[in-house]
Amino acid sequence: MANENKLQDIIGHCKEYGFVFQSSEIYDGLSAVYDYGQYGSELKKNIRDYWWKSMTQMHENIVGIDAAIFMHPTVWKASGHVDNFSDPMIDNKESKKRYRVDHLIEGHAETLPEADAKALLDEMDRLLAADDFSGLKDLIIKHKMKGQPNDSNEWTDVRQFNLMFDTEMGAVASDNSDDNKVYLRPETAQGIFVNFLNVQKTGRMKVPFGIAQTGKAFRNEIVARGFIFRMREFEQMEMQFFVRPGTQKEWYEYWKEARMKWHLSLGIPAEHYRFHDHVKLAHYADAACDIEYDFPMGFKEVEGVHSRTDFDLKSHQQFSGKKMQYFDNDLDENGKPYGNYVPYVIETSIGLDRAVMMVLSEAYELQDLSTEEKKDDRVVLKFPPMLAPIKLAILPLTKKDGLPEIARELMKECMPLFRCFYEEKDAIGKRYRRQDAIGTPFCITVDHQTKEDQTVTIRYRDSMEQERIPLSSVKQLVLDKIQMF
Amino acid sequence: MANENKLQDIIGHCKEYGFVFQSSEIYDGLSAVYDYGQYGSELKKNIRDYWWKSMTQMHENIVGIDAAIFMHPTVWKASGHVDNFSDPMIDNKESKKRYRVDHLIEGHAETLPEADAKALLDEMDRLLAADDFSGLKDLIIKHKMKGQPNDSNEWTDVRQFNLMFDTEMGAVASDNSDDNKVYLRPETAQGIFVNFLNVQKTGRMKVPFGIAQTGKAFRNEIVARGFIFRMREFEQMEMQFFVRPGTQKEWYEYWKEARMKWHLSLGIPAEHYRFHDHVKLAHYADAACDIEYDFPMGFKEVEGVHSRTDFDLKSHQQFSGKKMQYFDNDLDENGKPYGNYVPYVIETSIGLDRAVMMVLSEAYELQDLSTEEKKDDRVVLKFPPMLAPIKLAILPLTKKDGLPEIARELMKECMPLFRCFYEEKDAIGKRYRRQDAIGTPFCITVDHQTKEDQTVTIRYRDSMEQERIPLSSVKQLVLDKIQMF
Repeated sequence: MANENKLQDIIGHCKEYGFVFQSSEIYDGLSAVYDYGQYGSELKKNIRDYWWKSMTQMHENIVGIDAAIFMHPTVWKASGHVDNFSDPMIDNKESKKRYRVDHLIEGHAETLPEADAKALLDEMDRLLAADDFSGLKDLIIKHKMKGQPNDSNEWTDVRQFNLMFDTEMGAVASDNSDDNKVYLRPETAQGIFVNFLNVQKTGRMKVPFGIAQTGKAFRNEIVARGFIFRMREFEQMEMQFFVRPGTQKEWYEYWKEARMKWHLSLGIPAEHYRFHDHVKLAHYADAACDIEYDFPMGFKEVEGVHSRTDFDLKSHQQFSGKKMQYFDNDLDENGKPYGNYVPYVIETSIGLDRAVMMVLSEAYELQDLSTEEKKDDRVVLKFPPMLAPIKLAILPLTKKDGLPEIARELMKECMPLFRCFYEEKDAIGKRYRRQDAIGTPFCITVDHQTKEDQTVTIRYRDSMEQERIPLSSVKQLVLDKIQMF
Repeated sequence: MANENKLQDIIGHCKEYGFVFQSSEIYDGLSAVYDYGQYGSELKKNIRDYWWKSMTQMHENIVGIDAAIFMHPTVWKASGHVDNFSDPMIDNKESKKRYRVDHLIEGHAETLPEADAKALLDEMDRLLAADDFSGLKDLIIKHKMKGQPNDSNEWTDVRQFNLMFDTEMGAVASDNSDDNKVYLRPETAQGIFVNFLNVQKTGRMKVPFGIAQTGKAFRNEIVARGFIFRMREFEQMEMQFFVRPGTQKEWYEYWKEARMKWHLSLGIPAEHYRFHDHVKLAHYADAACDIEYDFPMGFKEVEGVHSRTDFDLKSHQQFSGKKMQYFDNDLDENGKPYGNYVPYVIETSIGLDRAVMMVLSEAYELQDLSTEEKKDDRVVLKFPPMLAPIKLAILPLTKKDGLPEIARELMKECMPLFRCFYEEKDAIGKRYRRQDAIGTPFCITVDHQTKEDQTVTIRYRDSMEQERIPLSSVKQLVLDKIQMF
């Protein structure tokens, strides 16, 4: 309950301080789509840049690409998304409402005593695993389930509903609209697989090597929820690491560990993470795990590490007729080159929006600062300085006596290097609190003493401590604290 | 003709060296969609980052946002795109091919003597301006036009074809598919307008102020061409600057000049640019111009600066019922606050892909380096160092004698700060040329002398000159040269 409140507090704070707005809010919003505001967009960009640098710049054998959202429709045939990327749905004949079958049944289970609920959910799992759609329909009718009060007990058959968005490209006068159908990619990974040969050859890459990319993906989720946790439009940061067949287990372990290290490098304590190993594997995987973070709504996946075997490259080889092979010059134990093979793939896939939500959840703190004399509190976002939207606030104590001029000089010195915020209105304490609320790690106050001894007050966000430092040392102090590597 | 060759050379070079690949190339490509490869993606990101820093970090009164591609469908009613963002099209009844009417007529005009062609095009312009669709159809039939040999002289009526892509969101069981229709945004600007109130209030912004964003936009162009110049999926970098009504002319002039300065800051000579002032203005504008760059195919728009009046905010006010107003505390000439108004807007809108193509065109040089003894040439991409995909190549002269170890130490020092490339194979001259072809401004060679006196050879891309410098000075030398501001 406390955590449900925390989620609501974070959502409210994000709106009030320009981090995240409901999309098209003036038109009462668009379901499960959000816009990043002036501070949220910077936070998101900083996380993306940190990931990008960690994964490409810091690895000689990983390069980036930026593939388009639109791809040839056969890509999604080959990947299995056209046939398998779907949820079973059912429509109520009276209300015309459509439901995801599992959500309808789970909702009903919540109204039952615990033992009955468990039996119902076990039965559902069995029917889902067997793709027994008529059994699912019977179950719904038998229990007289309702998704809402004016649903009748008359239901359509259960049918698969594909989660890919599609649109039509070009303008050919054709009666068959499928001719022009293209999909909005539901994952960025396929953009990497279809470019495997191009990148390997033109970049002279040698296995093992990786290809990384960040970008939008789209899924027509029936029930999208959890703020920016599950959206219909979202951003992924994915890396596919191509390895020699037979070495995938060790690389899978390597990337599991490397990615967890990355998360810990954000200053988030280890106990807020856990691995969740997949028992039931996707059709393309021979090992897979989630890195789960302890969100306000509990431990949930923020990243996945998957050993995808050679499924994707082989499938594209089959559908495109192009050989997706690599010639390995290295010598095996018998002194012969490994020769031609289709590489195996380890994937690391993190949701950027989920990472934003994780960093926000971790940073958000409502602190009671009351003393005996007076009640007081503050909201502070304790971002790692390298991720903070604003790095430095520069605040002349008053609007006169030449203080703004000194502050402006400091702005001029620092602005080219990192993002600064200038403000000369309101009491200084109020200004500090506003910076706390957007997570600015350092505030500099220029006061009358500055004119005498060229020192300024630096105020630290987390400790709220203040100390005097030379004006000339400000820039380097901030630069040292925001360094990524 | 020479320039047509240059365009083809650039396209070939982009593919060969991992800058730009045809999308889904293994499936024979997707028309007018491209993927950025390992170097193209870095170049594109560097241009985006430079724009973003120039426009937001360097301006106290401009903030960024990151709005979603999906928006409420009424947004596009209000903006005029549902009703007006379309081209007149006609289908041939025999071949079933569809044409843009103006392209069909222009194609026919090319086959006529000059005077006849001019008369035909004048007639077309008159009919288009009058929205006289049946007149256009008659014109096509009268001239027995053909888009291709097996077109007959039987044509459908001319009809408007909207350039927006649409898709269906959610899963409501509705017979009217329009209920769920959403569009892929054809411009990023509207994401700024609908967030105007949120950003102004939560960011405590005071007019004049700007909101910037970069992101994908989509247009179902009938004929998309010119490599990455006109694509169906592309990226925009837009900034909307909100000003007090009556001051828009001066701000328009300000941004015209500021944006041209930005272009010149890329090191591109002024004579490669020109302004093209719009004579016929869009329905929302009271002044507009293009910044045109001299592409291989001639002067074409790379950026637009538009005085959009209060059209968009007023229209959203009307369609949403929300007041899109700002209260201006500043005092007018009579000492009274300006009070409430709907701000006017100056827009700067640059195509990121076009900017990439501009930087590539400007940088590309095929140099004849032949001497009396031997024929030789090189392709060099003379990128500004701050935009180059790789900043520094570190090349041990040989693979042994401890040279790689020294080179690796330098890698370790420089990698966290900027993108480096390490290579120890092949003759050093060959390695230099490969770096020229991807535009790396600096190469460092570690040789046997390095072990004696701790100096290395630095080789400059543009002049091909080499000199010895202390190993310890390399990092700072590069840092100084790649600084953006």
